[in-house]
Amino acid sequence: MPALYSRVAFIGLGLIASSMALAMRRAGLVESYTGHARSAETRATALDLGLIDTVHDSAAAAVQGADLVVLAVPVGAMAAIAQEIAPHLAHGATLTDVGSVKGAVIDAVSPHLPGSVQFIPGHPLAGTEHSGPAAGFAELFDNRWCILTPFEDVSADAVARLRALWEGMGANVDLMDAPHHDLVLAVTSHAPHLIAYTMVGVADDLRRVTDSEVIKYSAAGFRDFTRIAASDPTMWRDVFLNNKAATLEILGRFTEELFALQRAIRREDGDHLHAYFTRTRAIRRGIVEAGQDTDAPDFGRAALRKGTPRD
Amino acid sequence: MPALYSRVAFIGLGLIASSMALAMRRAGLVESYTGHARSAETRATALDLGLIDTVHDSAAAAVQGADLVVLAVPVGAMAAIAQEIAPHLAHGATLTDVGSVKGAVIDAVSPHLPGSVQFIPGHPLAGTEHSGPAAGFAELFDNRWCILTPFEDVSADAVARLRALWEGMGANVDLMDAPHHDLVLAVTSHAPHLIAYTMVGVADDLRRVTDSEVIKYSAAGFRDFTRIAASDPTMWRDVFLNNKAATLEILGRFTEELFALQRAIRREDGDHLHAYFTRTRAIRRGIVEAGQDTDAPDFGRAALRKGTPRD
Repeated sequence: MPALYSRVAFIGLGLIASSMALAMRRAGLVESYTGHARSAETRATALDLGLIDTVHDSAAAAVQGADLVVLAVPVGAMAAIAQEIAPHLAHGATLTDVGSVKGAVIDAVSPHLPGSVQFIPGHPLAGTEHSGPAAGFAELFDNRWCILTPFEDVSADAVARLRALWEGMGANVDLMDAPHHDLVLAVTSHAPHLIAYTMVGVADDLRRVTDSEVIKYSAAGFRDFTRIAASDPTMWRDVFLNNKAATLEILGRFTEELFALQRAIRREDGDHLHAYFTRTRAIRRGIVEAGQDTDAPDFGRAALRKGTPRD
Repeated sequence: MPALYSRVAFIGLGLIASSMALAMRRAGLVESYTGHARSAETRATALDLGLIDTVHDSAAAAVQGADLVVLAVPVGAMAAIAQEIAPHLAHGATLTDVGSVKGAVIDAVSPHLPGSVQFIPGHPLAGTEHSGPAAGFAELFDNRWCILTPFEDVSADAVARLRALWEGMGANVDLMDAPHHDLVLAVTSHAPHLIAYTMVGVADDLRRVTDSEVIKYSAAGFRDFTRIAASDPTMWRDVFLNNKAATLEILGRFTEELFALQRAIRREDGDHLHAYFTRTRAIRRGIVEAGQDTDAPDFGRAALRKGTPRD
């Protein structure tokens, strides 16, 4: 297909931005690639890997002349970046981001933007436990979802073009409003991550069970928690601080349910446990049927170069 | 290598027993195979699949003449089976089990056994979310751990032979006492499973997020919980009822930690969150280095025909 944008500027050159560059190049979606990262080492690596054609020492310089700007920095850094680049954005440029929360990003970015800029918040539901520009791979978004949360006053053409870009990178695209996105992600991603972090921390604290035992016997179930709990600490700190209300609501519901099951164990109510476990088993089937996971030995990830899709 | 046992009798013909039969046949570890399952359909399937050479309508008939008897039934069914087979066990036969808890199994089985029988409780840390005789595969135990918890008065030769059997099936073998096993498994398996069941149940209950959204966006982290939460309901009901004290202790510690992290989110203590997440990330590295998981796209499970090793 013909290129959708003439020049993309990535602000932040980590796992997501580098994977986007590779996926865009795979399908020839953009004519030229530039970007900026805070660390000189990251900038050099991104250039060496051929992710971008040119690199800039400042975000302000990177966005000049770009008709697509992608904010791929931790949510906590979005406000300062938006303030810095706003005066330098090309007239009519599309600005998007890949943050895991949308309400907080909108609050941080929108106030700084000139009216001529089309701001379309986005969130690709993909990632691995690896970080940095060398961790990227073109297949990361294949058959994964990307959620866009555009405002009503944004140009329909701009939304259609950004949607076509994500579809060209292999993703399925959904549109919803930002508050609903933040609730859905609190359930499917943010609360599960905090719970996994907690369980791994408990195991690490437990003195009567050695670390080597926890590691040796991790295949018994614990291992799946560690995969989630290995995700980038800075990104996740910002996710929880910026989706505080929804995450705390889900964690409150989780605690209620957990106490009910603990009570059933204490009272030896086997029927309650069996009925609960039977219900959760059916949900797993739904996920496999929806093509978001598979029964295959590699969980359908043979196409991926590393890690497991996750955000 | 020469066969280690002349005749093995499996009581229960589900995922674990069928995988053991296939792994034993792969290495020629036993001369003849027989078994019993409560359901006539399961008995017929096990015979049709060639897992066992002969099948019996009763456990008592199955164990006659066997020098190795494997109890592969839910923990809650062990006592009745032990009582039934005890009078029919061959003199000097080795009796083992594959239950996920050891203290409760020992309490249920030991009182019924004649002194001539060598009872060596065992627990292979492997499994998938699939159940039944057709779910078995020979590679299930490859590079997984099997824990044996023999008493001091058991014959050293009998322990060495059973150890060689598990190593012949591809497993690594560790010996420890039953109470320590039950604590280690509460941390690495039982608590993680209950937590996964709980999170999946919460998502299913939440009315403002549709089931289809939970399923569509599950790759964001939730999916890894559903894989655990799809395990056999009857087996897991019995695990929690029979490892009650250790599981409740770990869940209590988990709740403490979770509350501390929720508090850090509420107070926006980003340093606390970042330090915690950095520590858990290191544990993940240890597991990969220990060879119990891998960075490869298929998590090193290409050798497996289905599912992910887990108990």
